[in-house]
Amino acid sequence: MKENVTKKSFGAKTLIYPTPVWIVCTYDHDGKPNAMTAAWCGVACSRPPALGVSLRKATYTHKCILDRRAFTIGVASEEYAREADYFGIASGRDTDKFKDTGLTPLKSALLDAPYIKEFPMILECRLIHHFELGLHTQFIGEILDVKVDEDKLTADGKPDIEKIRPMIYAPTVETYHAIGRQIGRGYSIGKNLK
Amino acid sequence: MKENVTKKSFGAKTLIYPTPVWIVCTYDHDGKPNAMTAAWCGVACSRPPALGVSLRKATYTHKCILDRRAFTIGVASEEYAREADYFGIASGRDTDKFKDTGLTPLKSALLDAPYIKEFPMILECRLIHHFELGLHTQFIGEILDVKVDEDKLTADGKPDIEKIRPMIYAPTVETYHAIGRQIGRGYSIGKNLK
Repeated sequence: MKENVTKKSFGAKTLIYPTPVWIVCTYDHDGKPNAMTAAWCGVACSRPPALGVSLRKATYTHKCILDRRAFTIGVASEEYAREADYFGIASGRDTDKFKDTGLTPLKSALLDAPYIKEFPMILECRLIHHFELGLHTQFIGEILDVKVDEDKLTADGKPDIEKIRPMIYAPTVETYHAIGRQIGRGYSIGKNLK
Repeated sequence: MKENVTKKSFGAKTLIYPTPVWIVCTYDHDGKPNAMTAAWCGVACSRPPALGVSLRKATYTHKCILDRRAFTIGVASEEYAREADYFGIASGRDTDKFKDTGLTPLKSALLDAPYIKEFPMILECRLIHHFELGLHTQFIGEILDVKVDEDKLTADGKPDIEKIRPMIYAPTVETYHAIGRQIGRGYSIGKNLK
């Protein structure tokens, strides 16, 4: 039993831990590949498999997704922390972020968007809905494929989170963190609790 | 420059790292508090501050949210890994999960939902939209307040992720992980990349 601790109120804000660090990749109207970092995102549905990414209308990527009806997600690994942060600072309106970072945009064979060759885990998404929520538009992308580097798999061929090493983000305090040790298995460690 | 590595295709599935482990709390029609674990969720908008949580129609919590138009989110910390897993296994239809775990439901003063007293970080959300995406309904909740235990703050009074110790989840391989070391600051480590 935990002793009594007072809770401090922080008010009405987007302050919650953790959020992902996912890189949204698109082509612009000239076919220039672009990449942007998003933390306002998550899986949204299992059937069809879909995820949601929320972007401000002011972003360059917002228009690109509406134009091309497609985007990819690259899971930012620790190794590319600086690049991931840069993708969230610069705008594709002003610069070519792939040239700036030296990362390689590969054209998806499934849809009209590029993905980052060097990133260990990427998802190809077809736009199926978009919802105006206020400052942000939420884009729902149907996941058509998930691709993972062969050298980032477990011995039995599954994506190994400890090799992929995705980052997480802490909003408000604005820090990136690594993932830590495995705590346990889902649908397992709580089974005999009752 | 990274050498060439082939990517393996996993097909159309909700396989992406990382997802959060957030506990959705509601009252049912009898006023019984209930808690359910969700990984298909994320922040959805900054103004109004809002988050999205996707639930299958078959879940008990789905109906409770529609009835009460409110829910809270508890950020599952490592300390409560077993309870968090249990909340995702059992159904409020069959059992009282608060009684089973010994955790304490406190009534929100802002809306018609309970929150978990022992959890270090909780958010109170008012339902503002729900979207039918397929197997899952996505509930968008406006965040009315964020509350954090006083003993989980940094010296300058902000929520300390290294004290809160939220878990993350790896879908498909179904493992929970701790957060690891801080990698760097947002809008900072990538600033001089170009």
